[in-house]
Amino acid sequence: MNDLDVFFNPKSIAIIGASESIKFGHSMTNYLLNSQFKTFPINIGKKKIFGHEAYENIGEVPEDIELAIIVVNNEHVLQSVKECVKKGVKGVIIESAGFSETGNATLSNIQSEIEDIAKNENIRIIGPNCVGVTNFMNKFTTTEINFEEAVERGKISVIAQSGVLGNIFVDWAASQKIGLNKIITLGNKVDVDEIDILDYLEKDQNTKVITLYLEGVKRGAEFIHRMKSMSKPILVMKNGRSNIGSKAIQSHTGSIAGNDKIYDSFFKQFKGIYRINNFYEMFDIANAFATQFLPKGKNIAITTSSGSLGALACDLIDKMGLNLANLSKSTMEEISLIAPNWISARNPVDLGPSSFSTFRPSLKLLMNDSNVDALLNIFAVPKMPIKTYSIPISPQLRDMKLLSRSTGKPIITCVYGSRWVLDYFLKYSGKFSLSIMTQIDHALKAFKMMFDFGKSHNST
Amino acid sequence: MNDLDVFFNPKSIAIIGASESIKFGHSMTNYLLNSQFKTFPINIGKKKIFGHEAYENIGEVPEDIELAIIVVNNEHVLQSVKECVKKGVKGVIIESAGFSETGNATLSNIQSEIEDIAKNENIRIIGPNCVGVTNFMNKFTTTEINFEEAVERGKISVIAQSGVLGNIFVDWAASQKIGLNKIITLGNKVDVDEIDILDYLEKDQNTKVITLYLEGVKRGAEFIHRMKSMSKPILVMKNGRSNIGSKAIQSHTGSIAGNDKIYDSFFKQFKGIYRINNFYEMFDIANAFATQFLPKGKNIAITTSSGSLGALACDLIDKMGLNLANLSKSTMEEISLIAPNWISARNPVDLGPSSFSTFRPSLKLLMNDSNVDALLNIFAVPKMPIKTYSIPISPQLRDMKLLSRSTGKPIITCVYGSRWVLDYFLKYSGKFSLSIMTQIDHALKAFKMMFDFGKSHNST
Repeated sequence: MNDLDVFFNPKSIAIIGASESIKFGHSMTNYLLNSQFKTFPINIGKKKIFGHEAYENIGEVPEDIELAIIVVNNEHVLQSVKECVKKGVKGVIIESAGFSETGNATLSNIQSEIEDIAKNENIRIIGPNCVGVTNFMNKFTTTEINFEEAVERGKISVIAQSGVLGNIFVDWAASQKIGLNKIITLGNKVDVDEIDILDYLEKDQNTKVITLYLEGVKRGAEFIHRMKSMSKPILVMKNGRSNIGSKAIQSHTGSIAGNDKIYDSFFKQFKGIYRINNFYEMFDIANAFATQFLPKGKNIAITTSSGSLGALACDLIDKMGLNLANLSKSTMEEISLIAPNWISARNPVDLGPSSFSTFRPSLKLLMNDSNVDALLNIFAVPKMPIKTYSIPISPQLRDMKLLSRSTGKPIITCVYGSRWVLDYFLKYSGKFSLSIMTQIDHALKAFKMMFDFGKSHNST
Repeated sequence: MNDLDVFFNPKSIAIIGASESIKFGHSMTNYLLNSQFKTFPINIGKKKIFGHEAYENIGEVPEDIELAIIVVNNEHVLQSVKECVKKGVKGVIIESAGFSETGNATLSNIQSEIEDIAKNENIRIIGPNCVGVTNFMNKFTTTEINFEEAVERGKISVIAQSGVLGNIFVDWAASQKIGLNKIITLGNKVDVDEIDILDYLEKDQNTKVITLYLEGVKRGAEFIHRMKSMSKPILVMKNGRSNIGSKAIQSHTGSIAGNDKIYDSFFKQFKGIYRINNFYEMFDIANAFATQFLPKGKNIAITTSSGSLGALACDLIDKMGLNLANLSKSTMEEISLIAPNWISARNPVDLGPSSFSTFRPSLKLLMNDSNVDALLNIFAVPKMPIKTYSIPISPQLRDMKLLSRSTGKPIITCVYGSRWVLDYFLKYSGKFSLSIMTQIDHALKAFKMMFDFGKSHNST
């Protein structure tokens, strides 16, 4: 058993600094105390927290504690960690901030002492200056997550350095119905770092793709070795390209950003590692990896209700080194038969305002064309006709799933227009394992990366 | 009076091919017949359309008609145009598709005949293959727009080639509370083209910024001359960078995309013309131009609740040739006084989870710092605390408006996280003239373009 399991499936938990007052850690305390996870609140001044018996310190808890979550003020953190060691706790998550990231020598020294404890004692520590972990498999979380609010379980696991950003990822993913599996925020990394988590996620059967937000790494050689040997796709976002950006990182989590060019050439060197510059792009692409088949070739077919967006997609296909699929003659002839005379039966197949009657038969023809490896569906239909005529979209979406499954080819849908139309699609994305985005460039980048990944990892 | 006024403020309208059946043009017919615009339905086989007397052809209408909207099938369009000429109609919008974009010689010839009519007769024609115009000032539209659904009137006017894309712009802008002024879709451009519309919008007092989606221009020299002498910022999106993209454009609106490098160097040459590659970016930046002061320098202050996103913004500031503002000593000292000890009083000002108590006083200090020219506010707060503690955001937003007005400096807010948090902000964007986006790169590009524009147009 991996010693990091305690962070994702703890048998018993203590929250050190648990409080009913409205401050950091309040929602998490409330959630865990009322969950299936055996949780003990620790608070020096309270007898009860949310109706549960509270203890003055962790030593007093009458049972073994596997995981401690520390949310006390920075000056009390070192003492709390020492008490955890004494209690025989296996894992500690320090969420409190105010250590090396402040630039203050005293606070940095305290962080070093904690680091030494992790080195010398039989205990693993995540943090400080983070919001810990969330596991969507068993709904365990050490941060403010509302599992009832449409947060979907998926196959993407997220490694983030920053606490706030970790929670923001969850919120945004929920809005887009992007399913997540595990989230780990690392903070100042006195012990557990990205290498440990990559080890863990590599073996985690529920994780299919990993997104990694990085501010800097301490164990460079090991990091390179670990990244090199991963069998799962990793999407990396790394700040600190510039001097001012590097300085900002240092006052954020005390990390040294390092020479960006070295990172860049390193990320380019390894198959399956992709550097991304944009947070939305990272999750859109991760979701395509998580939900779609890998394309076996670079030939992309396009269906679109907007000729302009179809032309834009062509430019991007060219830019990214993909091919616009040469449709077979029979496909073009059959599309001509079912479509009005003003429709272009060439690729991109511009369905214009006829999308609703011609999309389904066209989709079938395109997906079964042996010259097509992947389909980009650009859905740009104004809200009004869909709403006015109550046009059902779900049969189209079901077809997409069935055809994708029967042909083993991926489909990405890009929805342009109002949020209402997008939400209409997203309602079905879980049910039909769809990959839905709002930007064509994200979709085509995803196809390119997925094709490359398939080529380099085709033995797996 | 400009002869294009008839397209935006017609005194009387005929819809040729008006129909009650659920097909293209149905909603527009219903809207116009029940609007303040005097509208006559023309249909060869019906006596009544939506309860209004219908005429067999436009010649029978007992009153003068200023504008005719043609939505009949392509084979009847030429005859309809001839009847419009006979009737003395001033402007015609041909929405029907199926002309030169099909590649069919007969249909292209019909288009040429219509082109000749526009040249030789006293009539102006928009289209074919478009959805005409929308004017948010008087709520006149020849397409499917629902003015009741939160479409805001603003200062951005939009020139689009494609019909579908035109409507999609409106839907998306409405979702983002981006206010529009006029939208013109040009289609195959037998007569009215982007040069005519740029002439018109240059003089239009309600238009402050123009977005232009382009597939190709026919009158190259005049186009360059017109663009060169515009006094308003123009954001251009031009497809057809690649060969396959150019081909797609030809089958879309029959346009010749032209050599992309020529366009590119041309767009770079003129002050106030900015090429954009992404539709969302185009509108985000247009909205910043429409709602914010131009920054007088390149020194950007950042407030953020996420250190990671603050660092990302620093990298982008560097990349775009902007400066991270050197805050004056007094600003930093005063921020230190009001903020918890773990907050970085340097720029970027990382407010972390304290954003709610420290944002307003920090904002005031930063906006009044003479070393600061513009403020980027990165709001990355998870939904849960805002919802759980019912934290009010509107006082912060009001402060932003008042401080922007008193200092003459722009503010752009980037909201990261759930759609719910974004919508919370958008509720106030109209009231407080806010510029709200979801991507930091759009915000910083906007600041850069607005600074450049101010520098080159500072006499205006």
